Amino acid sequence: MTHPLFDKHQATLDRALQAIAERGYWSHFPESASPKVYGEGTAEAGKAGYEALLGKPFDLDQPGTVGQVGKERSPYGFDLGITYPKADLDALLAAVAEAQQGWRKAGPQAWVGVCLEALERINKASFGIANAVMHTTGQAFLMAFQAAGPHAQDRGLEAVAYAWDEMRRVPAGALWEKPQGKGDPIRMEKRFRIVPRGVGLVIGCCTFPTWNGYPGLFASLATGNAVVVKPHPGAILPLAMTVKIVRGALADAGFDPNVVTLVAHEAGDDTAQRLAMRPEVRLIDFTGSSANGAWLERNATHALVFTEKAGVNQIVIDSADDLAAVARNVAFSLSLYTGQMCTAPQNIYVPAGGVATKDGRASFEDVAKAIADGVAKLLGDPARAVEVLGAVQNDGVTRRIDAARKLGTIVLDSQAIAHPAFPQATIRTPLVVKLDAGERDKYLSEWFGPISFIIATKDTAESLAIARKAAKEHGALTLSLYSTDPKVQEAAIDAAEDAGVALSINLTGGVFVNQSAAFSDFHGTGANPAANAALTDAAYVAGRFRVVQHRRHV
Amino acid sequence: MTHPLFDKHQATLDRALQAIAERGYWSHFPESASPKVYGEGTAEAGKAGYEALLGKPFDLDQPGTVGQVGKERSPYGFDLGITYPKADLDALLAAVAEAQQGWRKAGPQAWVGVCLEALERINKASFGIANAVMHTTGQAFLMAFQAAGPHAQDRGLEAVAYAWDEMRRVPAGALWEKPQGKGDPIRMEKRFRIVPRGVGLVIGCCTFPTWNGYPGLFASLATGNAVVVKPHPGAILPLAMTVKIVRGALADAGFDPNVVTLVAHEAGDDTAQRLAMRPEVRLIDFTGSSANGAWLERNATHALVFTEKAGVNQIVIDSADDLAAVARNVAFSLSLYTGQMCTAPQNIYVPAGGVATKDGRASFEDVAKAIADGVAKLLGDPARAVEVLGAVQNDGVTRRIDAARKLGTIVLDSQAIAHPAFPQATIRTPLVVKLDAGERDKYLSEWFGPISFIIATKDTAESLAIARKAAKEHGALTLSLYSTDPKVQEAAIDAAEDAGVALSINLTGGVFVNQSAAFSDFHGTGANPAANAALTDAAYVAGRFRVVQHRRHV
Repeated sequence: MTHPLFDKHQATLDRALQAIAERGYWSHFPESASPKVYGEGTAEAGKAGYEALLGKPFDLDQPGTVGQVGKERSPYGFDLGITYPKADLDALLAAVAEAQQGWRKAGPQAWVGVCLEALERINKASFGIANAVMHTTGQAFLMAFQAAGPHAQDRGLEAVAYAWDEMRRVPAGALWEKPQGKGDPIRMEKRFRIVPRGVGLVIGCCTFPTWNGYPGLFASLATGNAVVVKPHPGAILPLAMTVKIVRGALADAGFDPNVVTLVAHEAGDDTAQRLAMRPEVRLIDFTGSSANGAWLERNATHALVFTEKAGVNQIVIDSADDLAAVARNVAFSLSLYTGQMCTAPQNIYVPAGGVATKDGRASFEDVAKAIADGVAKLLGDPARAVEVLGAVQNDGVTRRIDAARKLGTIVLDSQAIAHPAFPQATIRTPLVVKLDAGERDKYLSEWFGPISFIIATKDTAESLAIARKAAKEHGALTLSLYSTDPKVQEAAIDAAEDAGVALSINLTGGVFVNQSAAFSDFHGTGANPAANAALTDAAYVAGRFRVVQHRRHV
Repeated sequence: MTHPLFDKHQATLDRALQAIAERGYWSHFPESASPKVYGEGTAEAGKAGYEALLGKPFDLDQPGTVGQVGKERSPYGFDLGITYPKADLDALLAAVAEAQQGWRKAGPQAWVGVCLEALERINKASFGIANAVMHTTGQAFLMAFQAAGPHAQDRGLEAVAYAWDEMRRVPAGALWEKPQGKGDPIRMEKRFRIVPRGVGLVIGCCTFPTWNGYPGLFASLATGNAVVVKPHPGAILPLAMTVKIVRGALADAGFDPNVVTLVAHEAGDDTAQRLAMRPEVRLIDFTGSSANGAWLERNATHALVFTEKAGVNQIVIDSADDLAAVARNVAFSLSLYTGQMCTAPQNIYVPAGGVATKDGRASFEDVAKAIADGVAKLLGDPARAVEVLGAVQNDGVTRRIDAARKLGTIVLDSQAIAHPAFPQATIRTPLVVKLDAGERDKYLSEWFGPISFIIATKDTAESLAIARKAAKEHGALTLSLYSTDPKVQEAAIDAAEDAGVALSINLTGGVFVNQSAAFSDFHGTGANPAANAALTDAAYVAGRFRVVQHRRHV
């Protein structure tokens, strides 16, 4: 007997299972924001829905509520004025424990069915959530729609598919029949029951609350765990809207909605640490700083901890057919969402003697100028520029730009741009600074934001050696190579595999190194300090459940 | 192009994959020690081979050797007199790093092929290893042959099968083709390469060096990692013989044998901690005390740590058709290998008012007497008794027997038996002590050895409540129930699933609660403090490798 929600969404699940087996292109949730896809008036209704939330308490009926918290401010220059339930952790977690009882026993098909139903409902709310994401993260609207909507939903679906793929391979039972020579065999009936690990804790970030949050949320939920979602104080709303939808899906399926709860808090307190150290919490999914991630890895040893932390992403330029195409592609990667992506490149290694192109040798200065010109051209029109850049999420970014300006010769200075619609927003264009390979103390840490360094190396061998070592020691989510030489490509592949970093080779078209496609690209490898897990693979889900057996003679 | 060793063993692998998918009865390595199975003279040759090792340095050519260590003493009463290379860890791990280069690049088929070849060679050495296990662990010969030979080899094969099952589902590559409306699609070629995590460390125990050691050894090796094996100072020889065979298989396949190395040491030093804290070590498989296991979990946070620690295994007696059959089965579980098994039962809960049987009500005292009589009958003939009991592995066991005698009324006292062949061996029969349910401080910790408590409870509901709480808080690998009442069985199943412990119901035949069959029973669940992992499931292998991709336009 299958669960009705499992039946309802089985075709989607089956197609997702095919996608993770093949890892070619596939997407379930359409990334086009067109009314032809999402329906006439849906965009406007979503925006209105978001606006109706502003300036008042967010409607979320949770037990253990002892007041209200929340001081989000849009990076576009205004306070959201929304407050959220403040949780008494003891009371809330007691209610979660109660809710877990029925959820644990419901079994994999119910868990997966409810997750798929929740994802479909989240998809229908994509426009509202996109506005919430735009006004918490600072992403431009279209990016907020795509990356925080369908792309994040696809990542959630991917996690559910991996979870189901692991769970379905545990047989429900077996007849164990051991031959006994000429005598009757010993026969036992065995039953294998999948049980959840406990409570999953999702710790959100302020730049990609849904894209980085959904995989952990749905991987834990699909394996029978309860989930507590703790958003970053700067980006609560997108996850609050998500939690509310998931709770609705749970309740409509007859489950206690407290299987999924929100713990909002304001900056500067120890809510994350207190939650992480609760013995009920047996799974943690974290995106944020290296310091906080490493703290969790060291201290929350009672839980399985999945982290995505800081890293140093790198581009090695060795040679190119078309330098202008290289520059255009790199310029977009540096500019997109003001470089506030964990996958955005920072260090660009170029041989001091220049690089070969189809138009002859380009000097180091030529390459630096081409990239600077590429950025300037991409962002020449302020109205278009703000749709690429979005807004600066927090003051830390502008402070880092100021500090980075003093590190070396500026190839391209960061400019402040006025947003036509949001004059209060802080909009900054990329800063590009020239450094020498010897200045490792300057470029071997993460400068999160629109900050990049063009670094003069002796040759490509040195570029790759630095990149390999940096990824191994400081972490990296992406590595990009431009080279027409197959031997250099092989050397880069070897460096990438040794350092455990995803490599993109000769991106000059419509794909950018900071983009990672659900169902195809593994985001992070878990093999260097930037992330201890990959989105999404078997290792990301297999430990979220356990198998408990009983056996008896038949 | 497949690897020749992969081809050679593919039929075995395929059958093992079927077995883990079904988890019915299957075994690859025959457990019968008969000459009809293993060949005439094989047993004698194995024994002679073991005897030839005594009293001299073990021949193992490893780099970084700085002297000799080893002071093993047979529990049957004599010194083995074997010494092993003492490793300079810096020098040894430098050689391991060198060996890793070629191994990492060989890929999954080579890794799996070499593992399967090594297991076949280990199987051929079963008799020699059985003698080594007997004279380090104290197991009786037949148990040493079966549990440390074919059963351990099956567990190793199971780990390889799970590893391959996870790795084979990562496609080698994909064509990613994203539609672009009316334009040409974006086409990218992606390659997904499986890379190992680093160095695996296997920390062996003194009672089941191979059965508990092989799963980690082969799970790490089959996923491309190098492995350092650190045996317990009391049981080095079985793992030294194993490491030597695996090194031979590696060398014959053209790999640097230092992919697998042995670090032997003597009791009382910090070799385990020093190895565990090496940054190269990224995987740890540990069997041993709760204190040492918890230390690793708390401190070796740079590694994935799999532990099996202490636990309190329990039997709940509610009712029975045939009390004598219950007593016979329990008596064997208490006696086998002098209770020196991580799965051996310790606490036996019986309602103070007695239990229903097909012959009418049996009082609490009747049940206690039946079990005591069962043990006495099983072990009545000393010559037969020593083949069940084996020898006491270490003095800690006899000291615990002495201490436990003072805890309550003795139902059956532990006797010293003389071994007909080994007069110096310490042989002890089980101690059974009566306690009251209120005396939790006495019975809620592990009394490793032939020590059990028959505990008077108010009723079966209290028995199950205590058992559930004890398993959750103190850990347990096994739970056993005797009840003819389906409702009680359901309640026990619920308690077992909540506490994450494997349950056996009404074992009265030829299966014992302390036995766990490869390819069918999950040994440990990872869901309570006794073990953070299960032998063997997907979660045990999925994190031992990583996937690193590269992509480019086509």
